[in-house]
Amino acid sequence: MTELELVRWIRSQPGVAGIGDDCAILPGTRAGEELILKADQFIEDIHFRRTVYSAGQAGAAALARSLSDLAASGATPRWCLLSLALPGGLDGSWTKGFFRGLLNLARAHRLKLVGGDLARAGRIYADVVVAGVAPRGKALRRRGASADDGIFVSGVLGSAAVALRRSRAWIPSPRLALGRALRNRATSCMDLSDGLSIDLHRLCLESGVSAVVDRPLPVASGATLDDALHGGEDYELLFTAASAPPSHRGLSITRIGTIVRGRAGEVTFFGHKLLPLGYDHFR
Amino acid sequence: MTELELVRWIRSQPGVAGIGDDCAILPGTRAGEELILKADQFIEDIHFRRTVYSAGQAGAAALARSLSDLAASGATPRWCLLSLALPGGLDGSWTKGFFRGLLNLARAHRLKLVGGDLARAGRIYADVVVAGVAPRGKALRRRGASADDGIFVSGVLGSAAVALRRSRAWIPSPRLALGRALRNRATSCMDLSDGLSIDLHRLCLESGVSAVVDRPLPVASGATLDDALHGGEDYELLFTAASAPPSHRGLSITRIGTIVRGRAGEVTFFGHKLLPLGYDHFR
Repeated sequence: MTELELVRWIRSQPGVAGIGDDCAILPGTRAGEELILKADQFIEDIHFRRTVYSAGQAGAAALARSLSDLAASGATPRWCLLSLALPGGLDGSWTKGFFRGLLNLARAHRLKLVGGDLARAGRIYADVVVAGVAPRGKALRRRGASADDGIFVSGVLGSAAVALRRSRAWIPSPRLALGRALRNRATSCMDLSDGLSIDLHRLCLESGVSAVVDRPLPVASGATLDDALHGGEDYELLFTAASAPPSHRGLSITRIGTIVRGRAGEVTFFGHKLLPLGYDHFR
Repeated sequence: MTELELVRWIRSQPGVAGIGDDCAILPGTRAGEELILKADQFIEDIHFRRTVYSAGQAGAAALARSLSDLAASGATPRWCLLSLALPGGLDGSWTKGFFRGLLNLARAHRLKLVGGDLARAGRIYADVVVAGVAPRGKALRRRGASADDGIFVSGVLGSAAVALRRSRAWIPSPRLALGRALRNRATSCMDLSDGLSIDLHRLCLESGVSAVVDRPLPVASGATLDDALHGGEDYELLFTAASAPPSHRGLSITRIGTIVRGRAGEVTFFGHKLLPLGYDHFR
């Protein structure tokens, strides 16, 4: 399959719009909206293994990770671009399966694939760019947490670590509906991509506050406390607010602690100093 | 250098704005503007070699390629995101040099680095996302060429092929000013990323027309006709219009032929059928 043939096939798929020019030409934002952009990489043998993920699962997981960032910003997704580099020996059916997995999830969340870039590489390399919108001034940020805010997480923690240990594919559910609902409630928000210990540290750094975690974590079935504290890739939302309901559309919400004044970024866990042991790509 | 330390350093650089949240939160487009998005990959040992490109040259070249697509769309750049995967053994000074090269070019074109993603990989992998704007309905597309339009190219062709042969770094100049000037003149436009033969074929495919190239090409000094016809990466603009001036702000513009009715995508070169021999990543 040549690049021209692959592009022709991509353009024929449902959920694809406007491909064929050097750039994606889009209607832009509406009055009162902000533009929200994120790129997230999904790399073979770093983020996934081809022996564990089917092509379709890899495509869905690649998009889900980027969408999780939009969820954490309280944004409504509109468009995505896919940059994909593929090894020479890869079967054309793998490539089509990857696109199908990505496009199925895109349709479920009503966003269109509008562009990207194709290249050759030694391993599969995907970078998914998502673009969304939020009402002006309502996008959620990591900064904004202040003393006495409750600290909350959605869902359960450690699921991704369990899947990894059992060599199972892990496709996170981007918490887009919850993110939108938090626009008028949360004082800060981010997604748990690298593990609670490092992500809560980052949120507190940005907000210039400390965190006290003194309530039981919602640990996933089969997961250890260590998985829940330091395992990455859960893609649940971590947020601060004066209060939050116990669930949102069937998704549990658990209060795990309280924001306090103190050294920026410091997190204590039941009286112990919690080191940011989650995933740092460069450590 | 850990990821947190690198991100802290990036945020301290001039030309960087708003990094620190899960997404880039941007003011959006203004009334009467369209949003123009493009992602373009720049991969070690596919697009560049570390023995030939300094870190700064690689950073500049990575952004220049994406900006060239905005130029071809007649867009004004506003923002960029960089997804970067780096080998473990890479010196921190290489990474900083790459960012400096990219940010110098970004400042020259008045766009801000607003986000991206960092990861580990076996080779250097960069994906540069650029976002720009154009007046509604004025963005340039590949479709739109019609019979009797002149076919034009900016600058000279084959420079990138000459640089490659001489193992020299090649940093293209994105033709942004020309692209904006063409908004009200060109009937179709694209940039020459993969070689005139395949790119003119693509433009004619999108426009549903044929092309007759019957005037001498502007061949770069040291380049062969083959370089000018099939060498990729020149990043000059290829466009169609009723007419065009011989130059724009010191950049030469050469008419090379005429659009004619005929089979979509067919290109003849001084009476010979021209095969699309330019670069196809998957051939």
